[in-house]
Amino acid sequence: MQNLPQSIQTAIDALSDLPGIGSRSAERLVFNLLRNESGLDQKLAQAVGALKDNVRECPISFNYCDGEYCPLAINPGRNDRILCIVETPMDLLAVERTSEFKGRYHVLHGALSPLNKIGPEQLRIKQLFERVQKPNEIEEIVLALSGNTEGDATAYYLMDKLARHFDGKITRLARGIPTGGDLDYLDAGTLSRAFTDRREF
Amino acid sequence: MQNLPQSIQTAIDALSDLPGIGSRSAERLVFNLLRNESGLDQKLAQAVGALKDNVRECPISFNYCDGEYCPLAINPGRNDRILCIVETPMDLLAVERTSEFKGRYHVLHGALSPLNKIGPEQLRIKQLFERVQKPNEIEEIVLALSGNTEGDATAYYLMDKLARHFDGKITRLARGIPTGGDLDYLDAGTLSRAFTDRREF
Repeated sequence: MQNLPQSIQTAIDALSDLPGIGSRSAERLVFNLLRNESGLDQKLAQAVGALKDNVRECPISFNYCDGEYCPLAINPGRNDRILCIVETPMDLLAVERTSEFKGRYHVLHGALSPLNKIGPEQLRIKQLFERVQKPNEIEEIVLALSGNTEGDATAYYLMDKLARHFDGKITRLARGIPTGGDLDYLDAGTLSRAFTDRREF
Repeated sequence: MQNLPQSIQTAIDALSDLPGIGSRSAERLVFNLLRNESGLDQKLAQAVGALKDNVRECPISFNYCDGEYCPLAINPGRNDRILCIVETPMDLLAVERTSEFKGRYHVLHGALSPLNKIGPEQLRIKQLFERVQKPNEIEEIVLALSGNTEGDATAYYLMDKLARHFDGKITRLARGIPTGGDLDYLDAGTLSRAFTDRREF
């Protein structure tokens, strides 16, 4: 096996450290950058280097923002009476894409995971309790957490603790078969949950 | 849809410009970098920014190198009598991975593609002719080009012109069913070629 030029190998290694990019994909990307003559390499280097420069967590919603607050947290056009709790800013984006929800958000920045040493202190849970405890208009809290073990554990934990701080309604996302999903490709857990939660037609 | 902080959007856009990375994958990568606290963002920015710094084409093989010559072109342990022609440095890596070939390489840096305005002048074809014309020991030239239209066109073009500069053997990679390939997933072209080129067992 030939030794690649040092800078090529370094770039392949750095790209392979990204989740979901294996060494072959990293190779492909690097050779493409080498071949590209429109300055994409410098554009990418600058963009990634400056990525965190002005980004911080909004003190209300804990979503990423580059102003004082996340626009979603202060936009007067949104509904203050309903608060959606998500694990990550990316999950927030996913909910926004549905155009289904017009309330406020609270980003936890993760889910409880004792195996990875992520407890309530590592998440924005204390801030959530403070937020819902203040005199405020919140009538419903929607737990929009992942359908995996960590998401479930976080939901049960929040459910339990929120009851002490909050007397409104607490809901969670429906479980069932995904739209467009073939039954024979579904795992038994999803399908059995969809049976249990079946609704009148 | 919320407006993302500017630096996040810029990084997503730059990553989406890479081949095979759509906007959703770019989003995932960027949010992962934001979350990562081990400095991966700066490491990646530096590696990509310095990628082309010392990289050039070897004046013998036209493979990428950071010294004067590509190690494969001057390594005395390799066979000077057989020359493998590949489209790109990545294809060269793919051939090297097989450990099947111990000769020399010539990298064309592309394939003929009139639609994309890539003619012989855009490739290292003149240099190839010079290389095989010099008094040298080359006995066989292997055309290790892609199995697509551009690769075929390049092979026919080279076959035709090389005959005027070179009197050794010219070969090309075998066509047939890929190892591990299920027949029912193969396209008709591959299968019909494998029939035509069938070999005695």
